Amino acid sequence: MERKGLGHPDVLCDRASEELSIKLSEWYLDTFGRIMHHNVDKCVLSGGQSNARFGGGEVIEPIYLLLVGRAVGIVNNDRSSQAPIGKLAVRHTKRWLADTLPNLDVDSDIIVDYKIRCGSTDLVGNFEENVDIPRSNDTSIGVGYAPFTDLERLVYESEILLNSRKVKYRYPEIGEDIKVMGVRCNNNINLTVANAIISGECADASEYLTVKDEIKEIVLGKADDILNGKEVTVDVNTADDPEAGIYYLTCTGTSAEHGDDGQVGRGNRTNGLITPKRPMTLEAAAGKNPVSHVGKTYNIAARRICNKIIDELPEVTDASCLMVSKIGKPITEPQIMEIEIHAENSRAEITSSIESIVEEIIQELPVIWKGFLNRQYELY
Amino acid sequence: MERKGLGHPDVLCDRASEELSIKLSEWYLDTFGRIMHHNVDKCVLSGGQSNARFGGGEVIEPIYLLLVGRAVGIVNNDRSSQAPIGKLAVRHTKRWLADTLPNLDVDSDIIVDYKIRCGSTDLVGNFEENVDIPRSNDTSIGVGYAPFTDLERLVYESEILLNSRKVKYRYPEIGEDIKVMGVRCNNNINLTVANAIISGECADASEYLTVKDEIKEIVLGKADDILNGKEVTVDVNTADDPEAGIYYLTCTGTSAEHGDDGQVGRGNRTNGLITPKRPMTLEAAAGKNPVSHVGKTYNIAARRICNKIIDELPEVTDASCLMVSKIGKPITEPQIMEIEIHAENSRAEITSSIESIVEEIIQELPVIWKGFLNRQYELY
Amino acid sequence: MERKGLGHPDVLCDRASEELSIKLSEWYLDTFGRIMHHNVDKCVLSGGQSNARFGGGEVIEPIYLLLVGRAVGIVNNDRSSQAPIGKLAVRHTKRWLADTLPNLDVDSDIIVDYKIRCGSTDLVGNFEENVDIPRSNDTSIGVGYAPFTDLERLVYESEILLNSRKVKYRYPEIGEDIKVMGVRCNNNINLTVANAIISGECADASEYLTVKDEIKEIVLGKADDILNGKEVTVDVNTADDPEAGIYYLTCTGTSAEHGDDGQVGRGNRTNGLITPKRPMTLEAAAGKNPVSHVGKTYNIAARRICNKIIDELPEVTDASCLMVSKIGKPITEPQIMEIEIHAENSRAEITSSIESIVEEIIQELPVIWKGFLNRQYELY
Amino acid sequence: MERKGLGHPDVLCDRASEELSIKLSEWYLDTFGRIMHHNVDKCVLSGGQSNARFGGGEVIEPIYLLLVGRAVGIVNNDRSSQAPIGKLAVRHTKRWLADTLPNLDVDSDIIVDYKIRCGSTDLVGNFEENVDIPRSNDTSIGVGYAPFTDLERLVYESEILLNSRKVKYRYPEIGEDIKVMGVRCNNNINLTVANAIISGECADASEYLTVKDEIKEIVLGKADDILNGKEVTVDVNTADDPEAGIYYLTCTGTSAEHGDDGQVGRGNRTNGLITPKRPMTLEAAAGKNPVSHVGKTYNIAARRICNKIIDELPEVTDASCLMVSKIGKPITEPQIMEIEIHAENSRAEITSSIESIVEEIIQELPVIWKGFLNRQYELY
Repeated sequence: MERKGLGHPDVLCDRASEELSIKLSEWYLDTFGRIMHHNVDKCVLSGGQSNARFGGGEVIEPIYLLLVGRAVGIVNNDRSSQAPIGKLAVRHTKRWLADTLPNLDVDSDIIVDYKIRCGSTDLVGNFEENVDIPRSNDTSIGVGYAPFTDLERLVYESEILLNSRKVKYRYPEIGEDIKVMGVRCNNNINLTVANAIISGECADASEYLTVKDEIKEIVLGKADDILNGKEVTVDVNTADDPEAGIYYLTCTGTSAEHGDDGQVGRGNRTNGLITPKRPMTLEAAAGKNPVSHVGKTYNIAARRICNKIIDELPEVTDASCLMVSKIGKPITEPQIMEIEIHAENSRAEITSSIESIVEEIIQELPVIWKGFLNRQYELY
Repeated sequence: MERKGLGHPDVLCDRASEELSIKLSEWYLDTFGRIMHHNVDKCVLSGGQSNARFGGGEVIEPIYLLLVGRAVGIVNNDRSSQAPIGKLAVRHTKRWLADTLPNLDVDSDIIVDYKIRCGSTDLVGNFEENVDIPRSNDTSIGVGYAPFTDLERLVYESEILLNSRKVKYRYPEIGEDIKVMGVRCNNNINLTVANAIISGECADASEYLTVKDEIKEIVLGKADDILNGKEVTVDVNTADDPEAGIYYLTCTGTSAEHGDDGQVGRGNRTNGLITPKRPMTLEAAAGKNPVSHVGKTYNIAARRICNKIIDELPEVTDASCLMVSKIGKPITEPQIMEIEIHAENSRAEITSSIESIVEEIIQELPVIWKGFLNRQYELY
Repeated sequence: MERKGLGHPDVLCDRASEELSIKLSEWYLDTFGRIMHHNVDKCVLSGGQSNARFGGGEVIEPIYLLLVGRAVGIVNNDRSSQAPIGKLAVRHTKRWLADTLPNLDVDSDIIVDYKIRCGSTDLVGNFEENVDIPRSNDTSIGVGYAPFTDLERLVYESEILLNSRKVKYRYPEIGEDIKVMGVRCNNNINLTVANAIISGECADASEYLTVKDEIKEIVLGKADDILNGKEVTVDVNTADDPEAGIYYLTCTGTSAEHGDDGQVGRGNRTNGLITPKRPMTLEAAAGKNPVSHVGKTYNIAARRICNKIIDELPEVTDASCLMVSKIGKPITEPQIMEIEIHAENSRAEITSSIESIVEEIIQELPVIWKGFLNRQYELY
Repeated sequence: MERKGLGHPDVLCDRASEELSIKLSEWYLDTFGRIMHHNVDKCVLSGGQSNARFGGGEVIEPIYLLLVGRAVGIVNNDRSSQAPIGKLAVRHTKRWLADTLPNLDVDSDIIVDYKIRCGSTDLVGNFEENVDIPRSNDTSIGVGYAPFTDLERLVYESEILLNSRKVKYRYPEIGEDIKVMGVRCNNNINLTVANAIISGECADASEYLTVKDEIKEIVLGKADDILNGKEVTVDVNTADDPEAGIYYLTCTGTSAEHGDDGQVGRGNRTNGLITPKRPMTLEAAAGKNPVSHVGKTYNIAARRICNKIIDELPEVTDASCLMVSKIGKPITEPQIMEIEIHAENSRAEITSSIESIVEEIIQELPVIWKGFLNRQYELY
């Protein structure tokens, strides 16, 4: 199981799509009082070229990021209030990039481009019609589960910690492109961390090796907190080959600067992890319309249901949820809603408690979009 | 659970990446006697615009397909035998597209473009070094399972049948962009088929409705074969709204012609399905280097192991496999190899049989690339 | 003075723009009975990469051609008859390219792309309003002169002859990218011909040199016809350096295949020549709207006036014409119309004859667009 | 005759190409001690979309600028000092744009992209070989003349004045996209000025009309200085139609923000003017290699010769010069050097004086590149 961190090329694409969806939604709300149809859930990043070396280096061929999708531009043929799709795409993407990757110079290290067209009549119609309760744009599956296993927590929190302000403040050498993979083999837990080191902050190989040790210590410390003494090993940047002069160095903190490409929907699922043996959908939540795109909302709802079950019903040790929408039906009427739990006690009251929880979350679906606009749900 | 068919925008991207990898591999083999490093596992499709209507219509703004990745272009600084990356990307993509989507005019309905650069030194080095047994390019997870459930078989085979020559010959109205979703709710099985109908082959609404009925009958017939009389319902193109004049019509057989975008790795997993409650990885096999990219080869190997177990050990009813590579280690030495089975009898001999099967498949890994070049494994 | 021939990158761009304008105009006429506003007079060609060698070679990185401009797509908000701008751009460009450059494989040697948007309200308005006589879209200058000098004729006709079917039939080695430069120094006339030779048709250096000799002979033959015995020297492909293995070889007949870029409006003026010491405008006629774009129509009109004066008034040996439009005024009311002639006799009747000629050509301006659609005027 | 000003789309392209050539040249000098081969003399600008209105508005779809050409990236296969072509293209273009167009937000109103490849072997070889005196890259023509007529001066200086700091400080409403056309009809001189007005600086139509009056007065004032009392009329923004609400308003000061496209080499010649009845070449000086590209250097040299003749030989009232290079020959050995003068006195000494001037300028050709890097010559 793994987690791709903040600066990973796939995660950058996820975020680019989702942030654009948020900005479009806000603009629609401001202008028309409602969120118009859009779907910008495709984005591709073509890696640049850099000459990172200890103590410096620069990006010599910029990263190229292409946002792809469609969005309502003109409503009722009124061209005077046409949505500034391109402006939002270009400006806003650079802004959050500058915040997220302080070592990336958004003026020269990346080209942000877009191909965003008007949607097809069919889906647009589907969306426009709904007045009270939005209708599902598609027949889609959402899944969720709770709680995390210890290993899942460890993988997840290790990346969060390594990318925290606190750690960055102390170790400016630690870049944002971090991938943490965790495997459990019998009782042995191993974490493999791939962490781009900032070349300009790292004078030489010796400093680099020190930073690697620190990363290892940080993750081991986190493991101590979580694993209750279970055995764990941590490997950092295992592809390094000091004799051949090969280190995982980047000028900007992301491997996108030198050849690594990315795409939306290829990284973490909506719980922040990739978990091959747990329920997962292939839907990319990022960039989808937060009102009617059940490929986005049902994944969040399913996870919320599981979390709430675990929080409120102490006898439940494990919950998973699968929801299936029906295209054209109100989003509050999934065709399938399947909950599986493990519990320690008898199930009579549990069932009705779960039903209440499900009902509550389902009833919130028509306004779940507010949570997306507030960046309140994890999406990748 | 679902399957995206031949002409779905995501599947077109998967195929574009994989076919380019095959052509590059063939060229490298012809020229250098070995497959050089490449990774072209990113591709984005930006939908076009069409005016499909009963009896005709045309694509008025072409689909735009962008292949992204990197590949070795020049070996030993010998520019006289530079890899014709662009030529392979542009020409070959159009050729298989023309074969696959006979109603798509590759001269005017699609623009094939590419951004493919040289890989980073790190990974290139990793790959070049290996002489006998390739080394893993990354720490990646591969998963597989067998056999399919009845419902999985039904979903899978329904699409294969609808896209078969036999059906197409009889119903030229049936386009290649077919999505089949299957859900089981208690004992009820429901299949939802979204199938783009070819506008030029369909004179009017009445013919369209007849074709929808035929599609339904075809799928019901397949269900009869597979489900042994279990109850099944089939819905086709449920977003249609004849009163509003909304039908799922396309000139070319793919929704990519009018606004639907696509990407590599967003569709079927390497068994041809998307199965949220079964083991899945997020790795896109398509477009990856077939020699050292374990994100590609381990998924195929894991599935082959499971299939072989089911085929050869009748007492095993169900097998799943998880393999984890270690970056830089020989691909024949996974750090984790986990097999889970359900069997009806005692396990003594089974274990050793399974170990033999695993060993056999693992030992074939160094030449598994041949199977990719022969298009012998399903990848999406 | 010089002429860039059929296959020169700049000329390919000129033609791409003009052919698109013609196709758009035809579509508008068919659909709306009139030519709608468009201006597609920008186009850039980014050269490819090839490995031409005696006897063969191939384009390994395709040429990239980007058509740029704007055109009316939707009239009266009727989306059902939206102009197929992209389809026309992509399909038609490839068709004439395939005809023009038989050694270019339009399926793999070139990517045709476009960025064509709706025009600004201002100019669109300007154009829409006019009912009877179109109004000038701008204040522009058109110039023309007649007749050609002997040297001008020789430069012009040499390229035409080298690119004629007759010559190509006999010498398939002669590529379409031909540049002829003529200079007169005192009484010595020198022609420098740069002619891309088709690598696949030319087995070795000896055949190449033979073809160069033939080209020289062909041009000398043409010089004999035109120059009445004046001394002339002809140099062909003077950058060749056989000792260094440098020849002007191409797979496709155009230098665009290997690094030479092109643009609209950088080649021949509307008389087919670049003549630094004669009247020229910088306006690119190619790709402009043939109805109201005076930067296109006035150049043709000015040349037609001069040609007619020379044809009909034998005593006039030389005529030049300058016309200036006024934005927003009917195109039949230039603000300046200046004619200069050299004549051998008294001028009384000449003046009135010239006035009649001018009047006649001016009165034809409202329908001059027909001549552009018939490809009756030279534009580049 | 006309002049396109600072913010005209064609001039922006010219400048983009030339500035990139300068930055590349500086980088080559710093790194290798000499200027390596490059030719970036193609650039296309695809206009954006804006909603300028009195008092405000914004660019809603960014301008797209594509730099095209080739440049040496790697010397002697040393990839560690690869030229940062992309970085220079993207960063530097935005920097001078931000300086030049203060109302253009380079972060969101424009996308700067590039397609710049390695040059063909032929020209690269040609250039690399030369050690002392560079050799001509082509057979090209350069022309120049001096002095300006009064009208030429007026057109030229009017734009300079309107785009001066002094005027901008007083009238921030005056945008940088200014086109001045001057025509002389008998003794009447008319200037037509098209000047984009900054929407955010102009509250309403009445202020707009006031600014137009001011522009007219500024130009009339300049005319007073230059024309010695000759009659002159000045028209500003003649396409305006207040009744229809049509004004020449832009948010950014350039018409590129809303549909107007541009290209290199389509604007002013190397004397800053377009003069249809005077000697002109079609060569775009901007973006060419300043060492060996005679299409750039000969135009500047020819003009310098004429200026020097006029400055130093008071009896000469008018001089023009035509130079023709020979591909592969030293740039100091033009095959043709033609000077035409009008003088008031006998010519004996003049001839030798002119010869000295010519000799002097020719001898400076091997170091003329320094002047380009210092931006000492006008190029567009």
